[in-house]
Amino acid sequence: MIYKRNKLTIDHFDVGSIAKKYKTPIYCYSLKKIKKNIQDLKINFRNINPLICYAVKANSNLGILKEIRKNNLGADVVSGGELTKVLKAGIKPKKIVFSGVGKTSEEIEYAIKRNILLINAESKSEILEIEKIAKRKKKIVNVGIRLNPNTDAKTLSQISTGKKENKFGVNQKIFLHLVKTVKKSKNLNLKCLSVHIGSQILSYKPYQSMLRVVNKIIKKSNYNFEYIDLGGGMGIDYDHNKSKLDLKKYSKNIEKFLKTNNCKIIFEPGRSIMGNSAVLITKVIYIKEGFKKNFIILDAAMNDLMRPALYGAKHKIIPIKKINRNSKKSYEFVGPVCESTDTFATVKNYQKLNEKDYLVICDVGAYGMSLASNYNVRPKPLEILIKGSKIQILSKRQKISDLM
Amino acid sequence: MIYKRNKLTIDHFDVGSIAKKYKTPIYCYSLKKIKKNIQDLKINFRNINPLICYAVKANSNLGILKEIRKNNLGADVVSGGELTKVLKAGIKPKKIVFSGVGKTSEEIEYAIKRNILLINAESKSEILEIEKIAKRKKKIVNVGIRLNPNTDAKTLSQISTGKKENKFGVNQKIFLHLVKTVKKSKNLNLKCLSVHIGSQILSYKPYQSMLRVVNKIIKKSNYNFEYIDLGGGMGIDYDHNKSKLDLKKYSKNIEKFLKTNNCKIIFEPGRSIMGNSAVLITKVIYIKEGFKKNFIILDAAMNDLMRPALYGAKHKIIPIKKINRNSKKSYEFVGPVCESTDTFATVKNYQKLNEKDYLVICDVGAYGMSLASNYNVRPKPLEILIKGSKIQILSKRQKISDLM
Repeated sequence: MIYKRNKLTIDHFDVGSIAKKYKTPIYCYSLKKIKKNIQDLKINFRNINPLICYAVKANSNLGILKEIRKNNLGADVVSGGELTKVLKAGIKPKKIVFSGVGKTSEEIEYAIKRNILLINAESKSEILEIEKIAKRKKKIVNVGIRLNPNTDAKTLSQISTGKKENKFGVNQKIFLHLVKTVKKSKNLNLKCLSVHIGSQILSYKPYQSMLRVVNKIIKKSNYNFEYIDLGGGMGIDYDHNKSKLDLKKYSKNIEKFLKTNNCKIIFEPGRSIMGNSAVLITKVIYIKEGFKKNFIILDAAMNDLMRPALYGAKHKIIPIKKINRNSKKSYEFVGPVCESTDTFATVKNYQKLNEKDYLVICDVGAYGMSLASNYNVRPKPLEILIKGSKIQILSKRQKISDLM
Repeated sequence: MIYKRNKLTIDHFDVGSIAKKYKTPIYCYSLKKIKKNIQDLKINFRNINPLICYAVKANSNLGILKEIRKNNLGADVVSGGELTKVLKAGIKPKKIVFSGVGKTSEEIEYAIKRNILLINAESKSEILEIEKIAKRKKKIVNVGIRLNPNTDAKTLSQISTGKKENKFGVNQKIFLHLVKTVKKSKNLNLKCLSVHIGSQILSYKPYQSMLRVVNKIIKKSNYNFEYIDLGGGMGIDYDHNKSKLDLKKYSKNIEKFLKTNNCKIIFEPGRSIMGNSAVLITKVIYIKEGFKKNFIILDAAMNDLMRPALYGAKHKIIPIKKINRNSKKSYEFVGPVCESTDTFATVKNYQKLNEKDYLVICDVGAYGMSLASNYNVRPKPLEILIKGSKIQILSKRQKISDLM
């Protein structure tokens, strides 16, 4: 994404022309960026040679999943719906792991039937349920157990998952107990220890603590896990100030860990693959005088992009045409939805904007469309993928008639 | 909703039987309750005889809208989608008001074409846009102007809308300026002053302040408004401790207001009509030992009911079968979605629960399904309406195949 003669372009496409042609709001993805992100992971973790299972919850568009498959990644799914979708996208069952605290019997049955790589269980009850179904189906099922390492990921509290108060995984005591239980089972094959401490992590240090905990528990369990699934959570640079997780340092820590543990590493990255691969192109409907600021009312809203309302997340908003005049008043960028939470950001010294101007909301490729809704009976936006010199429609804009 | 021999019933239907028959999660509405709520409004505001325009954003199910129409209410819409839907439900254009800060040209054109009662404009730009379209269409359009009264509704900050920092309405100075502008226009007919200070308001006092501000500005404007649209925001008893807005007191304040202002009152209630009319029936998938508490993992999740994750809202969760034994540990009720925000409530001294037990999450009729999404590729739940001795399917459960 660069400005050429003050006009924003994505992979040589002029964003203004895209906006005019397709109408806004539009989720616009760059395949080049997705591939680069995957390549970055592969290169930085080269010494580990991990199995990378893309976290489908970040973005489950079928067209995106097909690109994920073409790049030889596996998938991390958290529901029967996601499992169905990745299989439809052609991802091999032997590259699929199933996570989540509330897998239903039907979902477990489906996963067993499709012979996926791993069901990562998160509770004793789930282990018993998997065993029951496996027994009934006369199968031996590969399972993992998710450990809650009680590690603070130092991220937003809403997206922290590895602390003892979170619902995810089991504590060390239960973990060790479950290892024994599964070892004894004729229908379960314990293959994996899984762990995941949260999302949007920008320092390798929480991962370091996590690895220490994992290392200890492996020793205590006295069990040789074929896989260690380290989850995802690798943070991206939403602020555009180069605050990105240092993957190299994280890799070094894992390499050290692998010296005493002979196992295959699984990663479940979602955001780090998809996050910065997309922008939400939007148009200024009205500019409105407010108290000590002007409201820039956009045609994109919280139903299109929930992260600001849900997590207080900040996404950079940039104009598609650069000018050299700044507004004297602050701008608050808001959507048209009838909620005070439908607000994206308040910015000082922004360039002067006019009604009908186009803007892009950055880094919306992950947890953007996957969290979108039809609130206020608003159709979901168009999704397009820039693919070299072509534009692929990933999903059509919903029509109002679809919402009746 | 009452217990009969310790079993939860809604309008004589046994909730357990409903759960078994239709499978969970289910949004289950009671028409009796909806009618009662409408009746309550009509009775409490009898002396005012307001035009009640149901706020469609609270719940836009077509079946519900048809019931709203049968009860002779109008509608408050905030998008072209909502407008299309209420017209489809048969609500008369002359009972429809259009609110919202970001009405597009297409939406305004549509509203003008359908001759709705009022377009309540929220900015100078919008007024100009309506005028431009009205002129082009050679029409005279009835408009309102929304005043931001800078009144603190003393509700959750996320759902406060009438403070000067909120995006809604215009301040007094701009309001007076716009009154002049519209008076001069040949294509606009100024009919209404509208105001709305927020949602889930439990005291009549913020309304009292609001009315004082409105009274003052009417005097200053020296204009005879045919309608005063007081919005909605009437709070309901989510806590089940009788903390409900005193409608009678609110009515008294309005009656006083009307003594010096000869106008028709419009209300835009959504939550107070729909909120307590529905429960979300859900099943316990697993019970899982946590740190100082047990997690009750439900088959309903944040994608089905967003309010707890989005606003930190609390909804009572009650069992469909009462027993006399309490759990020693606290329970945290969570959904299966892979997010720490997917949690509903933590409760002490709850009755002892077992896996596969059914529960209901209360008061989900407003801002429940309207905010639902397919996050984690989860199909949206079934919606049913109890209608006397019959059960009507309001919308079918989505299938996974619908989400591909």
